[in-house]
Amino acid sequence: MPPHQSRRTMIADLKGRGPKSAVLCGYIRRIRQTKSTTFVVLHDRSGTIQVVADPALIKGAGLRAESALEVEGLAREDPRAPGGIEFDAAEIRVLNQAADDLPFNSVSRLDDLSPELVINYRPLAMRTERGGAIFQIEAALAQGFRAALIKRGFTEIFSSKIVANATEGGTNLFPIRYFDRAAYLAQSPQLYKEYGVAAFERVFETAHVYRAEPHASSRHLCEYYSLDLEMGFIEGVRDLIELEREILSEIFAEIRARFDKALALFDAYLPELDGAPTWTFDDCLARLRAAHGRDDLTDDLDPAAERQLCAIAEKECGVAAVFVTAFPLASRPFYTHPAADGAHAEGFDLLLRGVEVTTGGKRLHRRADLDAALQSRGINRSGFENHLRMFDFGMPPHGGLAIGLERLTCQVLGLKNIREATAYPRDLNRLQP
Amino acid sequence: MPPHQSRRTMIADLKGRGPKSAVLCGYIRRIRQTKSTTFVVLHDRSGTIQVVADPALIKGAGLRAESALEVEGLAREDPRAPGGIEFDAAEIRVLNQAADDLPFNSVSRLDDLSPELVINYRPLAMRTERGGAIFQIEAALAQGFRAALIKRGFTEIFSSKIVANATEGGTNLFPIRYFDRAAYLAQSPQLYKEYGVAAFERVFETAHVYRAEPHASSRHLCEYYSLDLEMGFIEGVRDLIELEREILSEIFAEIRARFDKALALFDAYLPELDGAPTWTFDDCLARLRAAHGRDDLTDDLDPAAERQLCAIAEKECGVAAVFVTAFPLASRPFYTHPAADGAHAEGFDLLLRGVEVTTGGKRLHRRADLDAALQSRGINRSGFENHLRMFDFGMPPHGGLAIGLERLTCQVLGLKNIREATAYPRDLNRLQP
Repeated sequence: MPPHQSRRTMIADLKGRGPKSAVLCGYIRRIRQTKSTTFVVLHDRSGTIQVVADPALIKGAGLRAESALEVEGLAREDPRAPGGIEFDAAEIRVLNQAADDLPFNSVSRLDDLSPELVINYRPLAMRTERGGAIFQIEAALAQGFRAALIKRGFTEIFSSKIVANATEGGTNLFPIRYFDRAAYLAQSPQLYKEYGVAAFERVFETAHVYRAEPHASSRHLCEYYSLDLEMGFIEGVRDLIELEREILSEIFAEIRARFDKALALFDAYLPELDGAPTWTFDDCLARLRAAHGRDDLTDDLDPAAERQLCAIAEKECGVAAVFVTAFPLASRPFYTHPAADGAHAEGFDLLLRGVEVTTGGKRLHRRADLDAALQSRGINRSGFENHLRMFDFGMPPHGGLAIGLERLTCQVLGLKNIREATAYPRDLNRLQP
Repeated sequence: MPPHQSRRTMIADLKGRGPKSAVLCGYIRRIRQTKSTTFVVLHDRSGTIQVVADPALIKGAGLRAESALEVEGLAREDPRAPGGIEFDAAEIRVLNQAADDLPFNSVSRLDDLSPELVINYRPLAMRTERGGAIFQIEAALAQGFRAALIKRGFTEIFSSKIVANATEGGTNLFPIRYFDRAAYLAQSPQLYKEYGVAAFERVFETAHVYRAEPHASSRHLCEYYSLDLEMGFIEGVRDLIELEREILSEIFAEIRARFDKALALFDAYLPELDGAPTWTFDDCLARLRAAHGRDDLTDDLDPAAERQLCAIAEKECGVAAVFVTAFPLASRPFYTHPAADGAHAEGFDLLLRGVEVTTGGKRLHRRADLDAALQSRGINRSGFENHLRMFDFGMPPHGGLAIGLERLTCQVLGLKNIREATAYPRDLNRLQP
């Protein structure tokens, strides 16, 4: 046993070892008192066990749920106990007593509480089985993304989040006072990913990005975690769609295997994406017209359309997911590569279970084309000299995509509000905790 | 072969396959022209190969180093060629021509160039063998940190970088205009890591942090990547030191194995840390007095002392690394747990090869103690109500550490300036690229 864990035994390690004296550490999930015995359900990160104690042992300690304890005693097999094991306490030390006026505890149902309260007490909410699983699964999604890309020869990059220029246009920026200069929080690592392609062909980054969304919606945050990749020498958008199909199917399979039990707490959906159709934007409009009589969309989809299209895909193809390609070029950013017709974008969105979770596409790779795109969109090119220079040394044809981690978590777990998958959300109203 | 790479063969996959027709993609490292033959050294992310072409094939194309190419042809074994294989081109397509006035190229020696030029052309600098290896190894260090902690039951967290309060005191903050409010860029995920401990016992985060350092030094950046961990139920600082010893030794072993060849390009140092001594701050002062007659240090070490102590450790213990414990309490942040004497901190720094790469320690875990610490340091407690609340539900005794990724990379590879290990540095003078 390594020296930094010398005294403590994890609860999960007691199992199948027969009677064993040990020191356990954890917090109290429940306490039940009878005249002759105190029962404490103790929880650590490995599991839960019932501790049986003589009330005299904790006399005057005023034990309360959520308090942190160290318990010395003897593990004893008991077929009646959950997990087949109980723990007889010989000594109980209170490491930190919980307050006696907590608004909820680790066995509460979060759905019965106000969302604001849950955020204000997030770590306590994370102690509930369901509240903790959300963030464990979210972390596993991010880790799965990295692992899938490392396996495929992608290099991880760490790009600056303090930028002198707007990446995606000039709106929704958070200004920073950078010594005596103006700067902004990065809306995307897009330009840095492209530089990464010039260096390493295939790069990814997992990091926060920032959008000053002046409205509060159930699917927008001012700060969200973006799973970004970019790859060189692609032929077209199909290469990106096939890659995303592969990696998401791989990540979902891993989550299904690892979180088998926790997923049962959710209305979870982690489909194989092989069967998800690829429809052009015009195909989508035709389907929306046919199925819902909609005639109101011209240059982009709206949330209702995203839901409707996923429902149609589920009916037609058995998967509630659609790769939508060929959006009108004008609605995509300046660096977008046009499709062969010049009017549509060589890009795509992935709609999953009714919400856009990915935007991706092929990018312009020639300096002259980028320069012309900036000019035709009326963007001041003087701020882009540093950027254009990066296209001077043989930038290959390339493209990439970005997945919003919180949105992906919501869609996979069937959560209704993105704040359920964001430990400490930042929006128009929230800066704390 | 997956559909998103249908035409292309990677250079490394040609080896040992005998004659094979293929399409290669990559950029030109060198071109050599004889009357009858053009030799192109083509590089992709998997390797390098010499392409042999009839000059007629590329007539008028004006091939230049760094240009991106697609080459169709036949791989042919040739014992004289490096790697034992050459490629006879049947067709060469220029995917993107490089400029003819690049200040250096992928076979240049970066040491001969100005550091400013290297940063302005970073992706091109990353194409050099040494310039690319720095960032590949840096990524592997971060990935090794995550892997070592996931294996040990740590949960990854993603905490907000936009904060309403200063974490580490009130200085060196970058202000943000957050809609109509004031906010700051986070100097550390410290407080959020502690909340994570309340939820999951063991957490880590890998992300940028921000310090408005108004001076430019070879070891400071305004934005750096912090490898952060925090763990509950520790007994003292020794648990943290032993954990760091273990994980760094593990990460270093992995880097030595994976980057065997690349490490030869550097003055690399990836020691086993088993033998690194643990000296108290007072021990260190005594050693500095004895060895260098120094009497000028009182509450902290300075860069010279860090170098001197590592040199002493190397001589005494065979490892140029020291864990320094028991700094004066007043020089550490408000959340620091005091040592038994009340005057020193239950914390540590790791000095590696002459530079501090880690700061860590045990933290206060009781609300009343934190409240008293804020008060005694004259910090306005009104901004900390949200923070103190997190100590109401049985926060266990805990501590953690933070490693600066760019500093670690520098020390491991023997780099002189932190900007060599930062793709796009942010400092007093730099906001671009």
